[in-house]
Amino acid sequence: MSVSPFSFQLHHVDRDCAARRSSFTTPHGVVELPAFMPVGTQGTIKGLAISLVRDTGSQMVLGNTYHLALRPGEDVVAELGGLHRFMGWSGPILTDSGGFQLFSLAASTKVTEQSAVFRSHIDGRKFELSPERSIEIQEALGSDVAMVLDHVIALPASDTAVRDACDRTIRWARRCLDARTRSDQAQFAIVQGGLSADLRVECAQQLAELKGFEGYAIGGLSVGEGEADMLRMIEATCPALPIEKPRYLMGVGTPKDLVESIRRGVDMFDCIIPSHNGRNALAYTDSGRLRMRNLRHRRDERPLEEGCPCPACRHSRGYIRHLFLANEMLGPILLTAHNITYYQRLVSQARAAIESDSYMDFYRKKIAGWESENSD
Amino acid sequence: MSVSPFSFQLHHVDRDCAARRSSFTTPHGVVELPAFMPVGTQGTIKGLAISLVRDTGSQMVLGNTYHLALRPGEDVVAELGGLHRFMGWSGPILTDSGGFQLFSLAASTKVTEQSAVFRSHIDGRKFELSPERSIEIQEALGSDVAMVLDHVIALPASDTAVRDACDRTIRWARRCLDARTRSDQAQFAIVQGGLSADLRVECAQQLAELKGFEGYAIGGLSVGEGEADMLRMIEATCPALPIEKPRYLMGVGTPKDLVESIRRGVDMFDCIIPSHNGRNALAYTDSGRLRMRNLRHRRDERPLEEGCPCPACRHSRGYIRHLFLANEMLGPILLTAHNITYYQRLVSQARAAIESDSYMDFYRKKIAGWESENSD
Repeated sequence: MSVSPFSFQLHHVDRDCAARRSSFTTPHGVVELPAFMPVGTQGTIKGLAISLVRDTGSQMVLGNTYHLALRPGEDVVAELGGLHRFMGWSGPILTDSGGFQLFSLAASTKVTEQSAVFRSHIDGRKFELSPERSIEIQEALGSDVAMVLDHVIALPASDTAVRDACDRTIRWARRCLDARTRSDQAQFAIVQGGLSADLRVECAQQLAELKGFEGYAIGGLSVGEGEADMLRMIEATCPALPIEKPRYLMGVGTPKDLVESIRRGVDMFDCIIPSHNGRNALAYTDSGRLRMRNLRHRRDERPLEEGCPCPACRHSRGYIRHLFLANEMLGPILLTAHNITYYQRLVSQARAAIESDSYMDFYRKKIAGWESENSD
Repeated sequence: MSVSPFSFQLHHVDRDCAARRSSFTTPHGVVELPAFMPVGTQGTIKGLAISLVRDTGSQMVLGNTYHLALRPGEDVVAELGGLHRFMGWSGPILTDSGGFQLFSLAASTKVTEQSAVFRSHIDGRKFELSPERSIEIQEALGSDVAMVLDHVIALPASDTAVRDACDRTIRWARRCLDARTRSDQAQFAIVQGGLSADLRVECAQQLAELKGFEGYAIGGLSVGEGEADMLRMIEATCPALPIEKPRYLMGVGTPKDLVESIRRGVDMFDCIIPSHNGRNALAYTDSGRLRMRNLRHRRDERPLEEGCPCPACRHSRGYIRHLFLANEMLGPILLTAHNITYYQRLVSQARAAIESDSYMDFYRKKIAGWESENSD
């Protein structure tokens, strides 16, 4: 019997909260946790040549099953050497399952026990996604971590609808395990259960009983509920998950969401916020958010953040503002690089804080900085 | 008396043609000639973080006086440390004078002996550019090389109009020299004269007699005339220019234009073609041009060009095609980097060929490659 290329090492839990310092080993390298994964929906972190992605300090990136299956097609990606070679990214990659599209494309999606049938957002063609098909696509893409197909619904929803989607997610998770043929691809199960702590715990326990998963995700959050509800669900779910596996909060969030969630025991994140907001002229710093189109930055010689090693911070705020006002591509490019670098520095500092049992101090300082008056 | 920070060294002229191998020294470094300057109209080579510009092998870049004066304003650039610091480019920079806008914005421009009055393409505001004002802006920007304000007109034009613009260009060149206050900024004069070889020679001689210029440009070409006419004008003008000064062909051109012009004694080029065409999915290679949206590239594992060190050539042609079909910014970014890298390799090879008296052999091989059947 061969040894799994995946392993998880829990190094330390902070003395004063549930924050965990750990490592996750994959066939393409070790990921130090807590970690943030930038999103490469269509096989590219929008605007960043792969050397710039590496320079942000990112360890692992995310690709999207639904988007890549539609275009260029997973067969094309496979023929061109798999997603790592396609993107030119030699580190670990996680692919989502397409479950999020059951939510985001709900208006044109029909979900049955067998599968979900979409209309392509590109050309309206029918696209069927079953648990088996999702794993087949993800195996063709060759990511290090595949996500199970889950049933994501909008919140608020009726108890029946939430329970129904949660139960289906568990049944689909089992089918994903059964569909697995590659030993060099891990599978993460996804906890659903809406805003019911009881359902979340039940879902987590049932998924844990299935065994076979290398990690667990908390899904179906950041879909319209408030911050308090989200944190309540994280607090309920984390203790119900196996301690010896990584915990991934899907699609979250702001810098504050990250430090709040890490405090409650989350290990992994992905989110479009740093890149999406960067393209829209919003820069993250330790002293708050800067709207780079604002007139006050016009003659400002300072970098976005003193000491930041990103390519944006080689320039003045005045230059960054100019790029956005002149509609130059370089504006979105530089702020994307800056924001992802900022997120990576944030989780790197969180890792160091946990190691020295000072996470709560780190947490309080970060939040105080973000709430300062320098924010636009 | 202080020594000029500018100097020109003519190392070698090819045995079989007029191609020159030389160096041009500026306060921000030495430029090995023949050289190609990528265009940074608004203080950025569109889509390229400055580290990627450096990686193309570019030695000197171009900025646009008219565009930067309108936005963000040369005072803002000066306050933010000058154009080098603004862009983050520590190598030499050349700025154009705004003369090209007398042609490109002709419909909303009124030229008198004193100045040209434009309507801003951004907000329609009046913008007056005299020789003195052009130099004032360029000195505020702090480029290494300022171009004199010239009167560029569309071709074909009447003999009278061509003669009139040519004479005005000479008078304006003298006013630019008189307006000069910085010793760390060179001025290049610009030869006009339409498609009249006699006028071109006369203009070159009169500008040479003015003394004081560190280099000479050939302007008013690539504005509607054919290739044969352009080469005829270059052939007529180069011998009339001082041998001990660099010769810059403005706004030209394709790879073929470059090797044709180098053969006739041109030392410097700038052009938007590699970046503009790159943004539109056209890639230059030694075996012709590739249109990267074409279906034939879909499953092609090969890089655009074997051995090319650019960030695009870390990927397959199939990936590049995917980026363009998916409307990803990275497509334009990568092809811009590739095409400028291609141009830089081309002039670097030209320099080596001249040094070994084999320029004509190099020239013939390049043209044969570009005309091969691999071109899209």
